[in-house]
Amino acid sequence: MTDSATDSWTVAGRTFTSRLIVGTGKYKDFAQNAAAVEASGAEIVTVAVRRVNISDPTQPVLMDYIDPKKITYLPNTAGCFTADDAIRTLRLAREAGGWDLVKLEVLGEARTLYPDMRETLKACEVLAKEGFKPMVYCVDDPIAAKQLEDAGAVAIMPLGAPIGSGLGIQNKVTIRLIVEGAKVPVLVDAGVGTASEAAVAMELGCDGVLMNTAIAEAQDPVRMARAMRHAVIAGREAYLAGRMKTRKYADPSSPLAGLI
Amino acid sequence: MTDSATDSWTVAGRTFTSRLIVGTGKYKDFAQNAAAVEASGAEIVTVAVRRVNISDPTQPVLMDYIDPKKITYLPNTAGCFTADDAIRTLRLAREAGGWDLVKLEVLGEARTLYPDMRETLKACEVLAKEGFKPMVYCVDDPIAAKQLEDAGAVAIMPLGAPIGSGLGIQNKVTIRLIVEGAKVPVLVDAGVGTASEAAVAMELGCDGVLMNTAIAEAQDPVRMARAMRHAVIAGREAYLAGRMKTRKYADPSSPLAGLI
Amino acid sequence: MTDSATDSWTVAGRTFTSRLIVGTGKYKDFAQNAAAVEASGAEIVTVAVRRVNISDPTQPVLMDYIDPKKITYLPNTAGCFTADDAIRTLRLAREAGGWDLVKLEVLGEARTLYPDMRETLKACEVLAKEGFKPMVYCVDDPIAAKQLEDAGAVAIMPLGAPIGSGLGIQNKVTIRLIVEGAKVPVLVDAGVGTASEAAVAMELGCDGVLMNTAIAEAQDPVRMARAMRHAVIAGREAYLAGRMKTRKYADPSSPLAGLI
Amino acid sequence: MTDSATDSWTVAGRTFTSRLIVGTGKYKDFAQNAAAVEASGAEIVTVAVRRVNISDPTQPVLMDYIDPKKITYLPNTAGCFTADDAIRTLRLAREAGGWDLVKLEVLGEARTLYPDMRETLKACEVLAKEGFKPMVYCVDDPIAAKQLEDAGAVAIMPLGAPIGSGLGIQNKVTIRLIVEGAKVPVLVDAGVGTASEAAVAMELGCDGVLMNTAIAEAQDPVRMARAMRHAVIAGREAYLAGRMKTRKYADPSSPLAGLI
Repeated sequence: MTDSATDSWTVAGRTFTSRLIVGTGKYKDFAQNAAAVEASGAEIVTVAVRRVNISDPTQPVLMDYIDPKKITYLPNTAGCFTADDAIRTLRLAREAGGWDLVKLEVLGEARTLYPDMRETLKACEVLAKEGFKPMVYCVDDPIAAKQLEDAGAVAIMPLGAPIGSGLGIQNKVTIRLIVEGAKVPVLVDAGVGTASEAAVAMELGCDGVLMNTAIAEAQDPVRMARAMRHAVIAGREAYLAGRMKTRKYADPSSPLAGLI
Repeated sequence: MTDSATDSWTVAGRTFTSRLIVGTGKYKDFAQNAAAVEASGAEIVTVAVRRVNISDPTQPVLMDYIDPKKITYLPNTAGCFTADDAIRTLRLAREAGGWDLVKLEVLGEARTLYPDMRETLKACEVLAKEGFKPMVYCVDDPIAAKQLEDAGAVAIMPLGAPIGSGLGIQNKVTIRLIVEGAKVPVLVDAGVGTASEAAVAMELGCDGVLMNTAIAEAQDPVRMARAMRHAVIAGREAYLAGRMKTRKYADPSSPLAGLI
Repeated sequence: MTDSATDSWTVAGRTFTSRLIVGTGKYKDFAQNAAAVEASGAEIVTVAVRRVNISDPTQPVLMDYIDPKKITYLPNTAGCFTADDAIRTLRLAREAGGWDLVKLEVLGEARTLYPDMRETLKACEVLAKEGFKPMVYCVDDPIAAKQLEDAGAVAIMPLGAPIGSGLGIQNKVTIRLIVEGAKVPVLVDAGVGTASEAAVAMELGCDGVLMNTAIAEAQDPVRMARAMRHAVIAGREAYLAGRMKTRKYADPSSPLAGLI
Repeated sequence: MTDSATDSWTVAGRTFTSRLIVGTGKYKDFAQNAAAVEASGAEIVTVAVRRVNISDPTQPVLMDYIDPKKITYLPNTAGCFTADDAIRTLRLAREAGGWDLVKLEVLGEARTLYPDMRETLKACEVLAKEGFKPMVYCVDDPIAAKQLEDAGAVAIMPLGAPIGSGLGIQNKVTIRLIVEGAKVPVLVDAGVGTASEAAVAMELGCDGVLMNTAIAEAQDPVRMARAMRHAVIAGREAYLAGRMKTRKYADPSSPLAGLI
């Protein structure tokens, strides 16, 4: 949107206009994924290193559909349940593609897909020392968020609800506390199910939103991607505009002294 | 938005692309009001006949700022507390400006600004018989909505929360029931305080949203108007796209069978 | 509860200690219904005149199980869709059992079971003139509530959510507005699904709660009836106790100056 | 309540009937605190070791008002910001009073009073090895909850909202996930502001609720204590009773086939 062009955010020295990061799982095929990314306006896609073929030239590759010269690839560690696993996965990603801006997630269990914050913190420290720029999936814990920052996280990515649940932002109070305490960008990662919920995340003051299932599992993923593009802009603009105060009682829009 | 250009709605035979109707109260001046309308993308503005000078050529008039050739004026009966008052007000409006597409509101009391549905129904019947096309502000009552339709309402406009409260859509269940039962357009009128709430209204399947205070009382009304434009598109597109189902448990975006 | 014995409410000149009114539909049998009423502590049960046998001595009757000398019977007009229907039904009830304290409900449609307020108002006026004391099921509309009062309603009974939905109190703002404006008792009728929601109704300042499905369709209706008894007392006591103010930031229970 | 007498819970080998734990901060004086504890029905009170005089016989002591032979004292580490601090505090408490059942909290910062889970886990391990039975205040993180259990926690006490905020249970989804995954009792600690919210905590399947500010800062603390007693029973009974299913559409309590 030209009218929002001056608003941007910066992570690890790179500046982006779009505040929406889109995933690459669960789509029918690469073509649909690419169409959704384009409709979303996203400048970053996140890719599970363990799942997506990023190096075998004999197989179809996502990069034939989503051009890495135009769209920033953010490798992630989906499916890793220990710090060691995640570190190893990202080292391989760096060797294969040269990426250092990465998304770290270390899951605690398959049931809830909640992160294991103890392992996540450990991995974050190691990765930062090795020169990675980790954006980190985490619980909505303002203290853990500060510890991640101290450990070298370049962005804090708290969940808004369990991964893939589509339940919406369950924890507005805590997300706000994290935003108020953070010196690095904060992006809600997981939980958004429809457009208004992406707007809610932005209205809380987040720098961005990451989502996958809400788009990929919509009946019309490309149309939902477009909805999400507008929702993220809407929420961001509303945050910057400064919303009205709520009132307990009604207040007439039209003072009653009339001309008739 | 070119990408949404094919989506439109029709009320009383007139077709509009924008689903956002904007008020004309509480702004600093006509210039700010006009700038907000432009940023909102609205094609309809609503004007309190009792408050706004629509006919005295010696005074500054809103029409010098918001061109009635480009923007549809929707006269409303804000400040009327009886059917007779509202009917008389709209007759004067029709004489002055020729309007027949009007917004009827008959308030029950100054404290809550809730409509008096008994008087509203009475006025709606009379106005429809006189050839008016009344879009009707009402409580969120599915039965009253049907009665208004039978009485000639061309659109049903239930409140989402008290006028000017900014409390958001308090009654999602009832709004949905009204939408499912209505044969004429349904627009949420009153209650929206920030962008995500406009998106919520649209995700419920409403045809549009009317708002005044949320824009006029934002710290930056023009920026909030832009936020609302995106929010209404976002909610509409999300409704059309068909949202994902919610899940109690987490679901991995990235199936765990990996390539590494 | 001896500790709450001094708290009571009065409707149409009759005073009750329990603020919970229980229905008589959907139970397995009369015995289960009676056990639930006892566990609930209710002093009033409501009975659908059209459904329950209140006069044929050859059939089993509810009164053999719930003693009308101990428990006040409140005949209701469930299943009536016009004012005439409801009026005729209550006249029959008065002839059969002498009741004048009645619950009026005139439904607008089978789909939503929302009341038809136009017919409800009409019936309320007629009944009041005939000496009935109508407690009236209605939409959550503060203006209609005042009109019912003016028409002779002895209690206002707004829905909290559609009948039988168990969705909880959807409209806290409006219920509060009704309570603040009413001179007669206000009871939430319909919408409660579990105990905390009955407490919410009471915390809003209502005089009581009426429920049927939440108890009758619980897996263990008698246990749920007991839960509801405690919930209604809890909400009432909390309302009278005056709740703490909410805080945006945390506040230590224990000032940090210590003895150690 | 005699009707709930058979329901009890056990922590570290001790069995309690009441599921409400009450704090001892912010009261006007010891007498008011004692009256509130009695009205609440609590069998456990928690005491900040750093704040409350538990050993100096020349000063007034809480134990003169709340009899430790009848009420279990649960010493807590409020005001400790490191594992070492908390461990030292509880060692002193054990020397002074012989307590081994303790409540561990290690705060991360004064602003939010969120726990520091890294330090909390460390302290939990040490305390368990020294024979303490730590009930542990923690964030609402199902993975951290399991780690605490593995480290010897005898109860998991996630926050429902920031300490002293009175915002209510903000995180129902996560509390439920913790309850489903835990083998030790789960009690919501912090966040409850009024009675219905205590009932919500219990309806999620928690074993109990701990609160301080909601009672101490009510306008009438003793009356609110009584409200909370009923609310906890109500929520527990409702959980055991098994609530009705919610319905999208209304459902008549009274089937329409009538006798009249």
